[in-house]
Amino acid sequence: MKKDSLKVAVIGGGSSYTPELIEGFIQRYPALPVRDLYLVDIEAGREKLEIVGALAKRMVEKAGVPIRVHLTLDRREAIRGADFVTTQIRVGLLAARARDERIPLRYGCIGQETTGAGGFAKALRTIPVILDICRDMEELAPDAFLLNFTNPAGLVTEAVIKHANIRSIGLCNLPIGTRMQVAQMAGVHPSDVEMEWVGLNHLNWVTQLRVQGEDALDVILDKAAGTGALGVKNVPDFGLDHDFLRTLGALPCSYLRYYYMPDQMLNEAQEAAQTKGTRAEVVQALERELFALYKDPNLAVKPPQLAERGGAYYSLAAVHLMDSIYNNRKDIQTVNVRNGGVLSFLPDDVSIEVNCVIDAQGAHPVHVETPIPPQLRGLIQVVKAYEELTVEAAVKGDVGAAVQALTIHPLVTSAQAARSLVADIIAENRAYLPQFA
Amino acid sequence: MKKDSLKVAVIGGGSSYTPELIEGFIQRYPALPVRDLYLVDIEAGREKLEIVGALAKRMVEKAGVPIRVHLTLDRREAIRGADFVTTQIRVGLLAARARDERIPLRYGCIGQETTGAGGFAKALRTIPVILDICRDMEELAPDAFLLNFTNPAGLVTEAVIKHANIRSIGLCNLPIGTRMQVAQMAGVHPSDVEMEWVGLNHLNWVTQLRVQGEDALDVILDKAAGTGALGVKNVPDFGLDHDFLRTLGALPCSYLRYYYMPDQMLNEAQEAAQTKGTRAEVVQALERELFALYKDPNLAVKPPQLAERGGAYYSLAAVHLMDSIYNNRKDIQTVNVRNGGVLSFLPDDVSIEVNCVIDAQGAHPVHVETPIPPQLRGLIQVVKAYEELTVEAAVKGDVGAAVQALTIHPLVTSAQAARSLVADIIAENRAYLPQFA
Amino acid sequence: MKKDSLKVAVIGGGSSYTPELIEGFIQRYPALPVRDLYLVDIEAGREKLEIVGALAKRMVEKAGVPIRVHLTLDRREAIRGADFVTTQIRVGLLAARARDERIPLRYGCIGQETTGAGGFAKALRTIPVILDICRDMEELAPDAFLLNFTNPAGLVTEAVIKHANIRSIGLCNLPIGTRMQVAQMAGVHPSDVEMEWVGLNHLNWVTQLRVQGEDALDVILDKAAGTGALGVKNVPDFGLDHDFLRTLGALPCSYLRYYYMPDQMLNEAQEAAQTKGTRAEVVQALERELFALYKDPNLAVKPPQLAERGGAYYSLAAVHLMDSIYNNRKDIQTVNVRNGGVLSFLPDDVSIEVNCVIDAQGAHPVHVETPIPPQLRGLIQVVKAYEELTVEAAVKGDVGAAVQALTIHPLVTSAQAARSLVADIIAENRAYLPQFA
Amino acid sequence: MKKDSLKVAVIGGGSSYTPELIEGFIQRYPALPVRDLYLVDIEAGREKLEIVGALAKRMVEKAGVPIRVHLTLDRREAIRGADFVTTQIRVGLLAARARDERIPLRYGCIGQETTGAGGFAKALRTIPVILDICRDMEELAPDAFLLNFTNPAGLVTEAVIKHANIRSIGLCNLPIGTRMQVAQMAGVHPSDVEMEWVGLNHLNWVTQLRVQGEDALDVILDKAAGTGALGVKNVPDFGLDHDFLRTLGALPCSYLRYYYMPDQMLNEAQEAAQTKGTRAEVVQALERELFALYKDPNLAVKPPQLAERGGAYYSLAAVHLMDSIYNNRKDIQTVNVRNGGVLSFLPDDVSIEVNCVIDAQGAHPVHVETPIPPQLRGLIQVVKAYEELTVEAAVKGDVGAAVQALTIHPLVTSAQAARSLVADIIAENRAYLPQFA
Ligand SMILES: [Mn+2]
Ligand SMILES: [Mn+2]
Ligand SMILES: [Mn+2]
Ligand SMILES: [Mn+2]
Repeated sequence: MKKDSLKVAVIGGGSSYTPELIEGFIQRYPALPVRDLYLVDIEAGREKLEIVGALAKRMVEKAGVPIRVHLTLDRREAIRGADFVTTQIRVGLLAARARDERIPLRYGCIGQETTGAGGFAKALRTIPVILDICRDMEELAPDAFLLNFTNPAGLVTEAVIKHANIRSIGLCNLPIGTRMQVAQMAGVHPSDVEMEWVGLNHLNWVTQLRVQGEDALDVILDKAAGTGALGVKNVPDFGLDHDFLRTLGALPCSYLRYYYMPDQMLNEAQEAAQTKGTRAEVVQALERELFALYKDPNLAVKPPQLAERGGAYYSLAAVHLMDSIYNNRKDIQTVNVRNGGVLSFLPDDVSIEVNCVIDAQGAHPVHVETPIPPQLRGLIQVVKAYEELTVEAAVKGDVGAAVQALTIHPLVTSAQAARSLVADIIAENRAYLPQFA
Repeated sequence: MKKDSLKVAVIGGGSSYTPELIEGFIQRYPALPVRDLYLVDIEAGREKLEIVGALAKRMVEKAGVPIRVHLTLDRREAIRGADFVTTQIRVGLLAARARDERIPLRYGCIGQETTGAGGFAKALRTIPVILDICRDMEELAPDAFLLNFTNPAGLVTEAVIKHANIRSIGLCNLPIGTRMQVAQMAGVHPSDVEMEWVGLNHLNWVTQLRVQGEDALDVILDKAAGTGALGVKNVPDFGLDHDFLRTLGALPCSYLRYYYMPDQMLNEAQEAAQTKGTRAEVVQALERELFALYKDPNLAVKPPQLAERGGAYYSLAAVHLMDSIYNNRKDIQTVNVRNGGVLSFLPDDVSIEVNCVIDAQGAHPVHVETPIPPQLRGLIQVVKAYEELTVEAAVKGDVGAAVQALTIHPLVTSAQAARSLVADIIAENRAYLPQFA
Repeated sequence: MKKDSLKVAVIGGGSSYTPELIEGFIQRYPALPVRDLYLVDIEAGREKLEIVGALAKRMVEKAGVPIRVHLTLDRREAIRGADFVTTQIRVGLLAARARDERIPLRYGCIGQETTGAGGFAKALRTIPVILDICRDMEELAPDAFLLNFTNPAGLVTEAVIKHANIRSIGLCNLPIGTRMQVAQMAGVHPSDVEMEWVGLNHLNWVTQLRVQGEDALDVILDKAAGTGALGVKNVPDFGLDHDFLRTLGALPCSYLRYYYMPDQMLNEAQEAAQTKGTRAEVVQALERELFALYKDPNLAVKPPQLAERGGAYYSLAAVHLMDSIYNNRKDIQTVNVRNGGVLSFLPDDVSIEVNCVIDAQGAHPVHVETPIPPQLRGLIQVVKAYEELTVEAAVKGDVGAAVQALTIHPLVTSAQAARSLVADIIAENRAYLPQFA
Repeated sequence: MKKDSLKVAVIGGGSSYTPELIEGFIQRYPALPVRDLYLVDIEAGREKLEIVGALAKRMVEKAGVPIRVHLTLDRREAIRGADFVTTQIRVGLLAARARDERIPLRYGCIGQETTGAGGFAKALRTIPVILDICRDMEELAPDAFLLNFTNPAGLVTEAVIKHANIRSIGLCNLPIGTRMQVAQMAGVHPSDVEMEWVGLNHLNWVTQLRVQGEDALDVILDKAAGTGALGVKNVPDFGLDHDFLRTLGALPCSYLRYYYMPDQMLNEAQEAAQTKGTRAEVVQALERELFALYKDPNLAVKPPQLAERGGAYYSLAAVHLMDSIYNNRKDIQTVNVRNGGVLSFLPDDVSIEVNCVIDAQGAHPVHVETPIPPQLRGLIQVVKAYEELTVEAAVKGDVGAAVQALTIHPLVTSAQAARSLVADIIAENRAYLPQFA
């Protein structure tokens, strides 16, 4: 990595999240001196790119850091010679996400952006585009890192692992968010919290938890029980029971509520769909407000309203990861990587989300020492099997693999529902699923 | 095994199935010359034991084979020095099974004798009794084989593998029944059918199928599609779709309908519960009729009405297995054994159901060569994790393990349902669950 | 396999072993009705092919079986549409083998036909030719079985596993020979002996041994100790010590003497090289005598002198294997196959020699149940690593891989010796090692 | 770990190495404020303990750090409540080591302190004493870390992993020494060198090597070739060949010369034994000189002559490890730990030497990403099998396991030599091998 000409390409640069990322780059500039920052988007996103790009330029200027912000629709130009390529794309925009959320409800299944049939639909649309970006990177920036923030991050990372020849890391803000929440619950600084993190993206557990060096798992489980204290913005909050958490023996991530209380989550989703709208529909309104704010030529900082959008700490996580790679820091962060035997009960070439040492070569998993009990292992395995089939379906356009994938997903109610979901998803995403044409 | 004094102890000898077994011993006598056959039961089963025992004696006498039939309530006497101990027990009798079938319906879950929360309840009651039998065997017949026909056979076999020090094999009549049905569909003799059988008891698939040496998997899948041709007596028949079976790539056992079409199966079960009664309730009537028949002092053969009871080919499978052990035949039968690396994606010390070479030392798995696709693997793994937790709960009386077990079972709707099910099952089986006292 | 037109191609048909094989086909004819038997050889072997082919025809005629014996130099004609292709080739003939035996002695290493640097040289010459045969089979007989009797059979089988797309089995006469010897020692019929066989070709152990159903391992170990009772023709006989065998806990094959007593074996080899000649040189004389006998137009049976040649039971093993495949017998034979997890401490895609069920689809390993102790495992692993490197060197013509292979071989004295051996072997086998050109 | 009362027990405190360690504690005092330092020895070492202990006290006093140095023969007093227990013991003293070096030469085998039959003898003497220390720790300091510097460190660590219930880490100075040498060869600061380290103690390779972030493996291999630049004090230096290193694909540790050039190493050892004496005999003289120096009441620093003794950087490594545990640093150090699946081709419960994250909970392996080629894997596996058997022999006093261990060791020439070695070692170490009595 050239020390004096750091180039970052942000694919999906017109996202409403971008000011978050810009703020991160500004704050971290002394350690991570980005020279050229390319915000890339597609024609359909040109207007948003221009709005958010203008804000980015104002933010950089106001901060007085010598980052050159480039706006472009030419992805190859952005990727050529980049050191980091990040993706925060949304194929089909929020309208497609709204469909992902509503189609499953027809069949009594949960439709969520990343979990279940909703995440499945998003994966089918997204994976081909990400692999296309990888093709560009293989040609134009073969030494660059792909830092993928695009959901479903675990599925996308696995597709890259299996079908591309570049260095990549998948990132989620749950690990850093959980750290922040635990720190708050324990009344300590986030750096005083240590966690062993095990599982897949959005299907994971903290299996060891220490606060200021002392084992604090049970204490935090007790505090978390019933309170929903560990929720995230886009996951309704019902809380989990004290006895359940204790015998579970690990702190589940908030998405696990879909698996542990699917009936309540489904009810909530159905009700929301009929009243305030699905999460995508709520977010569409939020986004409109945000872009209205972004247009204000006097705005030169990240507006506080962005916090409502849901990606808390996303920028922190992203810039932290780049910093550690750029500076070969060898610190430990929780990211999505190739398994390669770390979780011995999964195939080698799948993606997992675990603690890794981050250095200039990328992310290197730390050996997981806590024995994973069957109540975690079984869920991880069946969802991973679903993910393997989903990646196969997305890459090959294989309807059979798609039906088999959803059939075994714990949140899909039957093989018949799986078949109907696949049919509807393909029919209503025609424009984004050329592989199934 | 002493060639001239073969002793067999049948625990649960008062079962209505016993005439089936007696018929098998009579027919197989030249190859498997049983000298002493002990039918054992408990005090509560004394009357049934006497009825069925008297019939057994008449059958043997009429057939003119020198098998000595002994009736006893003294299990230790029966086990002492036995060569084979078979178990066909039903802890709590059919009344308990009826509860197993009805309790889950309260929470929208399937209650089946071996699958889901019903099988779970049966495992909690049965495993301690089976391990007690193993204790007797360790002391009184350390070289004997335990041939377990008691359901849930996979869970029981796993408990024996993990917690006893005897030689054991778990047996189900599905493999032989499937062979018979496929032979009929193909219009060939059963010996012309070859099957690679992979999975767990009542959760398995035929992954290779040859008829007269030719690959016939697709042909049989096509014939099976939609017809329910491969059903068993105690599993309602809905059929599975042609495309689904083709992309599944394997012939699923009939119990897999609970996983692939749980909504239909649940509806059927709920309707039956309100009309004709659950399967246990139907069987109770059947049993009364059977025992009325058995009492007839002129009856000296297995009555044809027993075929209604459901255990088709059970006797054939059982006697075939004993014959191959006794005569060191080295033929291939499909039974439940310790995994030990055969399915590399499962732990070593769990039970699996696969093709085995049967010789005088027991059952030796044949290496499974067909790659197991994710759609099979994921289900096997999550159900095995459930089984591991269930065995732990049954052996230790661990409520937490019990709740975690049901929580991850694909047919239990939520952690809350799991908790309620465990509470009800323990409360309504008090007399049979001393380990939870 | 067409039941009425069985075609067998014997590559290397001019071998002095062929009458052995012909005798086998004649005796087994009722079960294995070979219609067309092609004896194939290369131009350099034309004379031997004609001599042995004429004898074969006389044998068949005298026996009165309707096998049509064809002699040809056209390998593709022989392979086209064959059901079985067997290979018994010797690239470079006995002269090359004599070099394999003598070159290592220069560096204080054992040179043996299959073990150590001698077998290594033979593998480099043989593997490309075998893979060439596989190419023909892929094109002309894609459903045929390659039954490989060519040494080093383990290395050759592994090359086929890794680099060809045909069905193949590697065969050695040690398993059947050991059975015969144990039967003799125990005074029973060979069918009364059961053995669990574990390891690699020519590096294996009997880990369970039963005679008439009773564990007889210790008895046989005690009988074998010090007597050399289990030797083979081409391995000098020194015997192994009683205590050693008991703590080894398994009956080692005779080739293990090279590993357990390399100093004595080396001395013996060096002495022989200076006096009676190496084994190849002895065999050259034997072969001359045999072919002189074979020429006798009155000879129409296998001459007893062939027994001196060393391949005892080779025909029996070969024909037995074909019979079981042809007739889908599902009996158990010990052959070389892909590991695929059977020995969990080795990679999946290597060759191993274990008990297999033989049916119409080929050889299916029986699960190995005896825990393999470190004293067996360690040797198997290091020799397998040597074999992996040797296959790589043979296929790619990779001198570095060749040097690394020999460096870790237990019978090569140093990295320097490995380098010298590789240099000499390549220099003195130029005509047969085009891949290193 | 109590922050204000750090207690360290040094078992074998009378060692000549102790001033090295004291110097380390003094220099690192600000980060690692040792309050109480117990130097423990046995009665036979009382004089040396008093000499070196007095020097230690002078060193501490001169440095002005408030470390309290305690001298004791009461091991339990030293261990009670300790935070760290370190071992640097030599059971049988240098006289026993001299025997370890000379006995193997009788049978044409290498006798080295840690490698081959010499290390084997040392393991038999040492493991029971170390396990005895573990028993004390389990009782008196159950939360302490055992940091084992006693050779053979890999075997000792494995014995502790398998047979004790304490937290332990095995330490060698090779990793830090290699870093220093590579830094010197590359002309950079040691912190600019990054190495992936794979294998067992004294049988390992650097499989990835970066200097200032750039891949430098080939450059360093080329520099190392033939020069012996990477030697250690107690291993004669012959150099390895350029081509060999390139195709090896990894930088071998200096002890690997015993495996790659055993003939030269043996010659050197035999010659030394006849002239200057074995290494132990040389060291005995060195030690006498050192203790003469240590007695000097004016000496209050580590004398430069200690550098001749061989343990370069030993103190640095030891204190660095304690510092990182004490301060929860999460940096990466190369130590000996339980495998647990990190090297998937070895059993789980063996010791390996790899890069680990060091934190307050101990050493956590970083996932090894470089595929380990067969030329490394095969050697690691066979030597690990030897180690497993050696630990078993040492713990159980099992002569059979001992013979099998040496039989498969690459540096032992035959089973007969193994038997003779075991007999001589037991006979000539009677006083130190009660387990074989
Ligand atoms: Mn996320
Ligand atoms: Mn069954
Ligand atoms: Mn052979
Ligand atoms: Mn060391």
